[in-house]
Amino acid sequence: MPTTIEPLYNALVGKAGAASVKDLKSDDTSERLANLVVASRSYLLGLKRTDLESKVPGKSYFMFSDKDRGKTSRSVNATQFMDDLDRATIDRVMQCDVVGMTSEEITKVVYTCAIAYCCAADILKSNDQKTPGTYFEFLIGHLVARTLGVNPEKQITVPTLDEKVTLPTDYVFNLGSEKNRVHLPIKTSTRERVVQVWAHQRVLDGMHGVARFKGVLVAMAETNKQKDKSVVEVCLPNQWMAYQMYIAQMFRVYYLDLPEKYVALKDRYPFIQVKPFGDFFGEVDKIERSGVDA
Amino acid sequence: MPTTIEPLYNALVGKAGAASVKDLKSDDTSERLANLVVASRSYLLGLKRTDLESKVPGKSYFMFSDKDRGKTSRSVNATQFMDDLDRATIDRVMQCDVVGMTSEEITKVVYTCAIAYCCAADILKSNDQKTPGTYFEFLIGHLVARTLGVNPEKQITVPTLDEKVTLPTDYVFNLGSEKNRVHLPIKTSTRERVVQVWAHQRVLDGMHGVARFKGVLVAMAETNKQKDKSVVEVCLPNQWMAYQMYIAQMFRVYYLDLPEKYVALKDRYPFIQVKPFGDFFGEVDKIERSGVDA
Repeated sequence: MPTTIEPLYNALVGKAGAASVKDLKSDDTSERLANLVVASRSYLLGLKRTDLESKVPGKSYFMFSDKDRGKTSRSVNATQFMDDLDRATIDRVMQCDVVGMTSEEITKVVYTCAIAYCCAADILKSNDQKTPGTYFEFLIGHLVARTLGVNPEKQITVPTLDEKVTLPTDYVFNLGSEKNRVHLPIKTSTRERVVQVWAHQRVLDGMHGVARFKGVLVAMAETNKQKDKSVVEVCLPNQWMAYQMYIAQMFRVYYLDLPEKYVALKDRYPFIQVKPFGDFFGEVDKIERSGVDA
Repeated sequence: MPTTIEPLYNALVGKAGAASVKDLKSDDTSERLANLVVASRSYLLGLKRTDLESKVPGKSYFMFSDKDRGKTSRSVNATQFMDDLDRATIDRVMQCDVVGMTSEEITKVVYTCAIAYCCAADILKSNDQKTPGTYFEFLIGHLVARTLGVNPEKQITVPTLDEKVTLPTDYVFNLGSEKNRVHLPIKTSTRERVVQVWAHQRVLDGMHGVARFKGVLVAMAETNKQKDKSVVEVCLPNQWMAYQMYIAQMFRVYYLDLPEKYVALKDRYPFIQVKPFGDFFGEVDKIERSGVDA
């Protein structure tokens, strides 16, 4: 029943008087996320699917639609979306119990969990850009916080000579003085707004020294469902190269639906490492380790 | 008649097969801008005005509304908007013939010209964010190009050792090797997107040397008409300070409806110079002159 989705969303992020998560990395948050995923999937599985014309080489996409509401969802990568995803597997991944799973499997499970709520909100709400972004930030923030064993903060103190100034930030993680800190921007898609990610990394580098914070961007996809219902990927690799050369250095970029044009960035200067999100769990030590090596 | 506004807009920016401006700084562009301003004002002057509750100290705002369409405009600064603005004065300012006018007068005329089309579009179009921004970029781009005597470009070549790469940019002006170049981002409002301005300045500094391009941001206002019809100014002075300290140095920021919170930034480190747009015409020599002095 779709009427269960909104209360479960509110139980996560804390609207409408609901008690939101107090401890992002906790078992309780794993549970709340899994509940919302299960309810969203259960709603979506009753909807019609329509294949979309994919203009992305090697990838196929569909959308969900609800005839009664006259609404359709964003595009869904048909390979990444798992139809037969059971609660036990959702729980395992939400608890970051991923031993024995491949990067590809993890990426698919997280993609399916991420897109499920987003598609449900596309159909159940009108013009809702905000809750899918907030949900996605909670989902990825939880998985990273649980893996690092530390909850993030969302503000930072600016070291000025004069007065005390704090700035809002994306999630930042303090892993202690013997490790890097982590700067974790999370976006459902980046487009031309992506320059913010490098700019905020630059501010952190300027305030606290280059690479005191390792920058890790996590994004869902760069797909765009056009008016004619075809699907394109909007990628700006030249801009990314200029930002990595002249603004700051992002240590990793992870995607759930990885654009090939960005994967190719690892093979030429400035060698931006863009990978499927499942890889994160296998290279946490590199993110935590001090130094600027890749 | 509102039906004249869209063709005049298209004659400026070039939609619907209309011949758009070929030479941004030309007399022809002055004329096309003035025609659109006059048509927009003529439409607005037949509409009802409603005073809005201003939460901005010392400023009062109103909106236009069209009962038949059930639509209202963005907020208009009552002091900056000139009711009795004749065609001759519009023409003078569009031609940058501002000798004998005070900065305050110029700012009011440009504000009135800028907001006239924006308000008309708010009411005549549905959910149109794009054409007011495009119009405002043409208007300010024209005035600056005409004053500098040079048309701008909107892309730049990245100096890489390997392949040739070009990037899209905001307007950039090449004043010749004996003067600065100018980087001119233009925004109807900035909000949290403002970090893009400093980030793009940083890319230019990185590619071509610090202050080879002087950064000049021009913005209309930071007002926001809230659901209860009150007007607030959304200002983030602490963020601006951090960006000016750690990302790049903008040489000037000009506003048509100047927020007091940003004016105060000139009095403390890093001393960001935020001024009314009319001041631009009196300090063009500082923007053209080489060196990083203010």
